[in-house]
Amino acid sequence: MKNTITSIQSFCKEKGFVFPNSLIYGGLSGVWDFGPLGIELKNNIKSSWWNFFVNSSENIIGMESSILSKKQIWDASGHTQNFVDAIIKCKKCKSNYRADHLINDILKIPTDNLDLNELNELIKKQNIKCQKCKGDLDKAKPFNLLFQTKIGPEQSKESIAIMRPETAQLIFTNFKLIQNTTRKKLPFGIAQIGSAYRNEISPRNFLFRCREFEQMEIEFFIDKNDEKCRLEYTKDKKEITQMLNQKILVYTADMQEKNKKEQELDFNYLIKNKIIKQEYIAYWIWQYYVWLNKIGIDLKKLRIREHTKQELSHYSVQTFDIEYNFPFGFKEIIGVADRGNYDLSQHQKFSGQKQEILNNNEKKIIPYCIEPSCGIGRIILTLLFDNLETFKDKQGQDYTIFHLKPFIAPVKIAVLPLIKKLSTKAREVYKKLLNQNICIQYDEAGSIGRRYARQDEIGTPYCITIDYETLKDDTITIRDRDTKNQERIKINDIYKKTFASQKLK
Amino acid sequence: MKNTITSIQSFCKEKGFVFPNSLIYGGLSGVWDFGPLGIELKNNIKSSWWNFFVNSSENIIGMESSILSKKQIWDASGHTQNFVDAIIKCKKCKSNYRADHLINDILKIPTDNLDLNELNELIKKQNIKCQKCKGDLDKAKPFNLLFQTKIGPEQSKESIAIMRPETAQLIFTNFKLIQNTTRKKLPFGIAQIGSAYRNEISPRNFLFRCREFEQMEIEFFIDKNDEKCRLEYTKDKKEITQMLNQKILVYTADMQEKNKKEQELDFNYLIKNKIIKQEYIAYWIWQYYVWLNKIGIDLKKLRIREHTKQELSHYSVQTFDIEYNFPFGFKEIIGVADRGNYDLSQHQKFSGQKQEILNNNEKKIIPYCIEPSCGIGRIILTLLFDNLETFKDKQGQDYTIFHLKPFIAPVKIAVLPLIKKLSTKAREVYKKLLNQNICIQYDEAGSIGRRYARQDEIGTPYCITIDYETLKDDTITIRDRDTKNQERIKINDIYKKTFASQKLK
Repeated sequence: MKNTITSIQSFCKEKGFVFPNSLIYGGLSGVWDFGPLGIELKNNIKSSWWNFFVNSSENIIGMESSILSKKQIWDASGHTQNFVDAIIKCKKCKSNYRADHLINDILKIPTDNLDLNELNELIKKQNIKCQKCKGDLDKAKPFNLLFQTKIGPEQSKESIAIMRPETAQLIFTNFKLIQNTTRKKLPFGIAQIGSAYRNEISPRNFLFRCREFEQMEIEFFIDKNDEKCRLEYTKDKKEITQMLNQKILVYTADMQEKNKKEQELDFNYLIKNKIIKQEYIAYWIWQYYVWLNKIGIDLKKLRIREHTKQELSHYSVQTFDIEYNFPFGFKEIIGVADRGNYDLSQHQKFSGQKQEILNNNEKKIIPYCIEPSCGIGRIILTLLFDNLETFKDKQGQDYTIFHLKPFIAPVKIAVLPLIKKLSTKAREVYKKLLNQNICIQYDEAGSIGRRYARQDEIGTPYCITIDYETLKDDTITIRDRDTKNQERIKINDIYKKTFASQKLK
Repeated sequence: MKNTITSIQSFCKEKGFVFPNSLIYGGLSGVWDFGPLGIELKNNIKSSWWNFFVNSSENIIGMESSILSKKQIWDASGHTQNFVDAIIKCKKCKSNYRADHLINDILKIPTDNLDLNELNELIKKQNIKCQKCKGDLDKAKPFNLLFQTKIGPEQSKESIAIMRPETAQLIFTNFKLIQNTTRKKLPFGIAQIGSAYRNEISPRNFLFRCREFEQMEIEFFIDKNDEKCRLEYTKDKKEITQMLNQKILVYTADMQEKNKKEQELDFNYLIKNKIIKQEYIAYWIWQYYVWLNKIGIDLKKLRIREHTKQELSHYSVQTFDIEYNFPFGFKEIIGVADRGNYDLSQHQKFSGQKQEILNNNEKKIIPYCIEPSCGIGRIILTLLFDNLETFKDKQGQDYTIFHLKPFIAPVKIAVLPLIKKLSTKAREVYKKLLNQNICIQYDEAGSIGRRYARQDEIGTPYCITIDYETLKDDTITIRDRDTKNQERIKINDIYKKTFASQKLK
């Protein structure tokens, strides 16, 4: 059976992955809470990302800024001015719509590139009405997405603080402090995981477009004119060759403008023909392909799409999205942007503090920056669509298996007595496995088949069953979620069969 | 040399542990960013906590809620009404003070128990003036510490959202959803790590009192009248005996009222004599002593202090703080509160949604709740005061060692060529160690002694030195931070000597 946003959302609520926030008070639109399984899944994704991108890397270091920040940061970055969507209000029932989404929903045409005037013209020309009451719509207006609050005892204009709409900007404001303390030389990157806040006009598609969401971002700083910053200088030949040979589905701005279809091309071609203008954009796209593959996402369902000119953010030189083919179409899960040195230059201008550092030739420069940016909610959503399989079993009942990689799965091992009578021995095994710093469940309620099914549904890779033979010879059976193979092994070998193989971490 | 808040704060900034937020714009008071070493330290503390309290426990499960939440939640919890401090303003220069702190700073008397009238009387009687301009002070007024923002496209009264002042309350609002999906029976706990926001009138003492800070909280639900919820039923005899024999320094409400000194007592005495009214309060205090010891905090510097009647929060039946003896006095690092069933009852009342669950006798009840609550910033501050040692070396220079436990230390291993000429071989060793999912540094700048010192300062437990012998026989020296012992081992044994011993995780 096909997964839909609705089926996925209710699966997440029923199993304890994700709940609507403030639900007992009617819910807060676009804001979600993670349940016991959701938080384990999320933590596993975050630590896999941190290990892959930060701790295994020679030139990436981490940081974590607060969520509250001074308004001046966002004046400098351009967000207080430019971080707007077009809002449209029904004159009659006062319902609000995000104008581009409304037109896209009704006319089924791409609206990413339309400006305020074009949106208003289309609404007039196509006689678009309120979807709720069929009333007339007011003119579309800009709506700023920043959340603000007042900080300190005075409730004055100076006391405005902003809830960051991206983690990126706080990397820039800490750039000099971090470069000073780490003495890193270009090229190097600073990584951050954390929440961001956008007052979306109409949050939608579950974890896809939220008002509060978590990002994993890297700002990778380079000197455009320095040989030592070139990819060849910093990465192994073997790694670069692997990258150049990787084929991916590509949808350039040009293809979009000329109404052509996407094409499968390799990085070698993309770089040589300057379709990707900056080699580190290619590198970071490729690194994400490697990581997405590692955490179990089907690379065949991905494409990269270049932002068209009209669509480019105010700070960006070139941007590619990595998109996943959801049932509701190809949608961005990761963005890789060339931000130039816009942000650091702006902060230098607005703060009066020099943002220059010495490059490898001892010359002061404001470095350029490539930004791979990823939303954790969208990764979770992609894993759900890609790894959650529901089919009819032999009895004609729905059977669900969540084919998560063991190191990503929320629960690693379930300990199950074959029947309740064996629970003393089973609890003994269970207690032995606690203290291993991984998430384990114990379950003795219901038939063993029902309990296997419950574990398959939430993606537990291994079920350990305690039966009568266990009492005799201290052996248990270990069942693999995907192959359904059961193997009889010694209790003392559980560790070797699961943890030690590194499959769980 | 003695650590002070000032010395610790500048150490943290210089080494890249903690920076003031928005510093290039003058800083945002009471808000901090974590640098490359700070975030590794913080992540290690969080994962140690999660492993100890959640994944190693039979009856604790995790969750993570959003930071934005509906105002109704905080109406129900009492925060919109009661979450206030007394603010006092200078009539002349308009400076703001937190009244109890001001009086405490000047008169050096405890002010935790004073209400608004008492504060105003003291200020009048003692003729307390503005500390900045000596001007007259206005009357103290209540000041609500909640941060609020507007959510959604309408900027009406209904669109107010609150930035949570504690993670606890979101555990209560998700209580039924979580109990339903996990089918847990009483007693069980729900744990959460995440940021909280309090608009402190005067943030102070670095990470000690911030406007944005991170909590690690557990709400542990029990049925007061059920034998199966008693400690003896759920925990091993061995564990309980260990607890009962643990001696701790105790400062009861009675001792405080009668101006007596604190006393060393064991849990057996405290429980038997009903000094601690609820056995789970004792249990969670003890669990925190075990964990604090594990992460390397000197238990001799701790005491537990009972909240006096006047000081008790509006929801609390009895509360004990675990306090650490900072240079500025004993201060709370962890609180263990008996919240009764106040919160769930309030949510039932305000939401109209039943918050009852079936107890072990199949009777519907609203469970009672014990809350151990811990601030990560305060744990980091405690580790800094407890583990950071500065002394004069033989040359009379300041030498600093950060004696962090290896699994808590931000950088686990530093790879150092004895001299720059050996860097090719050293980088080879370094690259081999990357991909081990731990944080490693490579350093070739400056004398080897200077580089050891840099690593000692940031708490790196192991330095690996590549010398001329390495070229001959693939051996390196591994140096222990605390003993300064150097051992020559094979490169291939690094893993065995460090990671495999589990000391790093």
